[in-house]
Amino acid sequence: MRVIAEERANPSFPVREMTHFLDGGVRVTETREMIMMQLERDPVMKTIDHNDLTLPQIRERTIQKIRRLAHYVANEPVAQFRQRLSILSLVDPGTYTRIGVHYGLFFSALQGQASAEQLSYWVQKGAVTLNGLVGCFGMTELGHGSNVAGLETTATYDEASEEFVIHTPTLTATKWWIGGAAQTATHCVVFARLIVKGRDHGVKNFVVQLRDPETFALMPGVVIGDIGAKMGRHGIDNGWIQFTHVRIPRSHMLMKHTKVKASGEVIEPPLQQLTYGALIGGRVSMVVDSGNASKKALTIALRYAAIRRQFGARPGEPETKILDYVIHQHRLIPLLAQAFAMHFTGVEVQNIYEDLMVKMETLKPGDKDLHTVLEHLKEVHGTSAGLKAFCTWNALNTIDQCRQSLGGHGYSAYAGLASLYNDFAVQCTWEGDNTILTLQAGRYLVGCYREAKAGKKQAGGVAYLNDLQALLRNRCQAKSAAEIDLDVIGQAYWLVAGNVVKAAGEEFDACIKRGLREDDAYEHCSQARLYAAKMHSYGYLFHRFKDGVAKAPASLQPILTKLCLLYGLYNIAENSGPFLQYEFFTPRHLDWIRARVAELCKDIRKDAVPITDSFNYSDFVINSPLGRYDGDIYQAYFDLINAAHPPAKVPPYFKSEIHPLLHRNTQADDPLELDDDE
Amino acid sequence: MRVIAEERANPSFPVREMTHFLDGGVRVTETREMIMMQLERDPVMKTIDHNDLTLPQIRERTIQKIRRLAHYVANEPVAQFRQRLSILSLVDPGTYTRIGVHYGLFFSALQGQASAEQLSYWVQKGAVTLNGLVGCFGMTELGHGSNVAGLETTATYDEASEEFVIHTPTLTATKWWIGGAAQTATHCVVFARLIVKGRDHGVKNFVVQLRDPETFALMPGVVIGDIGAKMGRHGIDNGWIQFTHVRIPRSHMLMKHTKVKASGEVIEPPLQQLTYGALIGGRVSMVVDSGNASKKALTIALRYAAIRRQFGARPGEPETKILDYVIHQHRLIPLLAQAFAMHFTGVEVQNIYEDLMVKMETLKPGDKDLHTVLEHLKEVHGTSAGLKAFCTWNALNTIDQCRQSLGGHGYSAYAGLASLYNDFAVQCTWEGDNTILTLQAGRYLVGCYREAKAGKKQAGGVAYLNDLQALLRNRCQAKSAAEIDLDVIGQAYWLVAGNVVKAAGEEFDACIKRGLREDDAYEHCSQARLYAAKMHSYGYLFHRFKDGVAKAPASLQPILTKLCLLYGLYNIAENSGPFLQYEFFTPRHLDWIRARVAELCKDIRKDAVPITDSFNYSDFVINSPLGRYDGDIYQAYFDLINAAHPPAKVPPYFKSEIHPLLHRNTQADDPLELDDDE
Repeated sequence: MRVIAEERANPSFPVREMTHFLDGGVRVTETREMIMMQLERDPVMKTIDHNDLTLPQIRERTIQKIRRLAHYVANEPVAQFRQRLSILSLVDPGTYTRIGVHYGLFFSALQGQASAEQLSYWVQKGAVTLNGLVGCFGMTELGHGSNVAGLETTATYDEASEEFVIHTPTLTATKWWIGGAAQTATHCVVFARLIVKGRDHGVKNFVVQLRDPETFALMPGVVIGDIGAKMGRHGIDNGWIQFTHVRIPRSHMLMKHTKVKASGEVIEPPLQQLTYGALIGGRVSMVVDSGNASKKALTIALRYAAIRRQFGARPGEPETKILDYVIHQHRLIPLLAQAFAMHFTGVEVQNIYEDLMVKMETLKPGDKDLHTVLEHLKEVHGTSAGLKAFCTWNALNTIDQCRQSLGGHGYSAYAGLASLYNDFAVQCTWEGDNTILTLQAGRYLVGCYREAKAGKKQAGGVAYLNDLQALLRNRCQAKSAAEIDLDVIGQAYWLVAGNVVKAAGEEFDACIKRGLREDDAYEHCSQARLYAAKMHSYGYLFHRFKDGVAKAPASLQPILTKLCLLYGLYNIAENSGPFLQYEFFTPRHLDWIRARVAELCKDIRKDAVPITDSFNYSDFVINSPLGRYDGDIYQAYFDLINAAHPPAKVPPYFKSEIHPLLHRNTQADDPLELDDDE
Repeated sequence: MRVIAEERANPSFPVREMTHFLDGGVRVTETREMIMMQLERDPVMKTIDHNDLTLPQIRERTIQKIRRLAHYVANEPVAQFRQRLSILSLVDPGTYTRIGVHYGLFFSALQGQASAEQLSYWVQKGAVTLNGLVGCFGMTELGHGSNVAGLETTATYDEASEEFVIHTPTLTATKWWIGGAAQTATHCVVFARLIVKGRDHGVKNFVVQLRDPETFALMPGVVIGDIGAKMGRHGIDNGWIQFTHVRIPRSHMLMKHTKVKASGEVIEPPLQQLTYGALIGGRVSMVVDSGNASKKALTIALRYAAIRRQFGARPGEPETKILDYVIHQHRLIPLLAQAFAMHFTGVEVQNIYEDLMVKMETLKPGDKDLHTVLEHLKEVHGTSAGLKAFCTWNALNTIDQCRQSLGGHGYSAYAGLASLYNDFAVQCTWEGDNTILTLQAGRYLVGCYREAKAGKKQAGGVAYLNDLQALLRNRCQAKSAAEIDLDVIGQAYWLVAGNVVKAAGEEFDACIKRGLREDDAYEHCSQARLYAAKMHSYGYLFHRFKDGVAKAPASLQPILTKLCLLYGLYNIAENSGPFLQYEFFTPRHLDWIRARVAELCKDIRKDAVPITDSFNYSDFVINSPLGRYDGDIYQAYFDLINAAHPPAKVPPYFKSEIHPLLHRNTQADDPLELDDDE
């Protein structure tokens, strides 16, 4: 413990002030601390034995936790309940997802797709308080994921009875991966093809009751199964659902946008774009999650590295702390800088998104700022797609690097990083597979490039495309390593992003010129789109980090500036190809950059433990003996494992299996030797 | 099924011939097929329900399997048993490790460290047949991993009784992660500091009995605990062991090298280097494992991608197979090429290693080829360190990329890739943490560079360092994409490796010149060493692949040449920085290379399913409905999950948890409203 105290003796920045700055104010910090204390002291919320529960036990524990949370949903302000869920997502991702399916998917679908009258009907039924109904979200099917337009489930309107008939026509149309379906939900928002008078109107949303809330018996025509074991998030009960000609009233189709009248007349919405605003919220929150999960993993890895010693002992001295090795600093400190980049980007994108949502709520066809809002929506949609992909990949990589940095202990479930990885991994897939999202982001960038080329001014994060010719002529003028500052790095990212976006745009244009259909042209330049999205997103993260530093209190500027420099320079060193290819930097600049990365790692290392402290995650949230605040890692780790597995007795299968193995009479197997001469 | 048949209709190469070539001959293929059939038909060996067993059930199942395997160890040739274990390692890594700890670690330690007389004693006790004893390997401690020299456990010689006293002096000295210790082993090879007459002679090996084979009671002074839940390999019972002044006879110290006489006289071995040959075997086999695990993951991902359809439907047509998308080809086909690179490298390094071991077995001080053999040992030691690290990282990444490429289904345990990942992950840590090994490899390369500079000719994989000045002047002369052939690519890798090894060597020399101790100088240039090891290892893999292609039958040359080109070019495109920085390629070359990578992906895609067939893993080995040979993926996946989880009944906690949640009387919580005016 003395060892970790020395790590905290001389932080170069005021730690508590950093916490307030990251949280967004003293009040937020206080609320978070109150919530952490409530979680930690509530015996129902315990997580310490998670690694040793069976799947049925985890499922039951999870629903107990949801009952506790239901108290708060009815008794605290929405913003505070969101803070609670955000902390829960780090403590227990399975429980978070199980309750999140109801609020984040089922209820969000109602908010986004139900008419005002419908919304009020479902709220009255208990959709806000979880009292009377629990919802799930029936989008994906066994044979259909990212391409919602390809779903097979049908909702056929029957004019005679004024009902929809929900039906699963094939095996591949089985609703699949539906969180909460297996053991929790009474109702489901089902994505199904609206068929009216034989005509297919595309995929719309319908509320279908799955179970009787009194008995939990399945409704007639509904069959549900549990899809069983998963990589992680074991608390959430994903299931499959098949509907066999299930009838629902017409009012159960969500009709904020498309409407079906009693007569069967279908009225399409005037503004199709508004229906996809809802997807963005999830993506934005995953940028924030990526920063938070990274901070948690790094807290464990850095505190462990400040205690663990290995090699390098000189006579009479202890071995060297692994955090003092150049290579260990290089493994972790750039990831720490990246966590800050994701943090600041998350905050900014969340703000942009919330502003936009407020505007969209009240938007009507014909409004004078309609065009501006729609342009803004397009930007947020395109940008958030790339950010969701690269941030979740970055976070997953951070978690794995942190796990590996613990050596063998990283492979123990009790270190907490294996489950963090397994729980987090799904973020790269759900709400838009990352690779598909990078292509969407790339398509958006190609579009921006072509608009800019045609003289249409681009705003926000793609404004660098406006005067591309001038931008692409930029060359780094730095005469020393010190001259490569945040502004120069910002220029470097814009230049590279500009070049790769231009390359993708030119490839696209060439395809069109060769006579390809637009979709085929986009398909042809997929790899270029992905690359454009990658370099644009890296640059976007850097610029948001840089903006965040500018807004920081003076006392925090020096450390944040170092972290921002490291983030920018490290990624240039690791992806040096395009920076050389487009001649912004020379090989000599790169040598300086590599040396500067090493200096920065060494310098920031001194603040490594105070920085983890500034993240302000309690030991309960960290849930790893190796990442304890007090640094007493070995005793805590040993005690935790011994509590779960008291010293070995004779294994239950000793008599039946091991004793017979050890006492085989192998000679009994010797065959009769035939005497061929006889 | 028709769909997958069309994938097999026109392979560009003879598939069965490829299998024989990869296996190393028709006879090997036949043996492997026999073993796969024996595994598949034996009910004890079943794996289909693995995802739904509890930890105690898995542990029991594992020991049942080991009893079955014990039959073969006594009744088939060693080479065939090794094939059996190699297949087992893909089918059931937990069981493989549990038996592998005995043979690969405990028994290998006896072979490498015991005198002939001692070895024969332990063989007689049952060390070969697993009859009478099962061994484990007590190296790592709670506070000590990669640095064996830092272990704390002591073995103090007591001349009076002619015994060693084995003791765990501190908590951090607790033997930790010991596979087989918790529930299986009767004996342990313990790594402990040899203390004789108060003097510490460093870490040596001692056989300590842990349990009575009759009752499985722990021996006095031995305490063992189970270290519990892990990321993967659940079948292996890792444990911790504490020794409290446990006495063992003098003859239980393994004395092939260092000897302790009855009097307490310590005799050190004449050739210290020979003691580290044993570590190399594990590293070499992990290169092979990395290729095999990659092939398994890719079989699942590529077959799935040939069936799964998404997006791109034109009126009246089905959606497009995801394997037909440029981006999906780019995700998987370069990894397929990499699997071949690891395969050929594994085969070659295994051969080199086996030759070397034969020579070392018979080597004595004073032999005339002693120096050559030791030089060779040094090369294999240095090279295998880097290969182990980069190949296991590559394989882990391949598995994760394959998992992600399945979309949501990749997150299902039944798809098989989550457990493949979790089981494989430990390979990056055990038998030498990858990062530490890259530094060892880099240190070896710096040494070679300095020797070469001093005029000492380098052989084998580092021969390119001999005439470095000439090498580094090379520039690619290709006037078209087609001219960038295997030889040019080979030159490119040597030039880059030569440059980065030189940079590391120069940085080291500069540190020495500044007066740093050798160890501090190496520490200072850690990042340069890691980079040198990386580029050297990539080049080494490419050259071994190229050599392998040259040895292939003519009928296989075209497809293997394409794969080898793709491997070489893809890694250049992905790591373009140094190829530009050292000016072997120009930006224009790189544009050609990127275009060529795209062409090769598209071309090899046509053979993708036949290539997975050539790996010749049975459906039992693949153990994923999504990777089935017959392509009937959806029905098999649905049936498997339903067999494990028959359609949902009311969850057991409905009455206790869900009903009360759904029927809360929230109004009962309304507080008394105080009337302040009263």
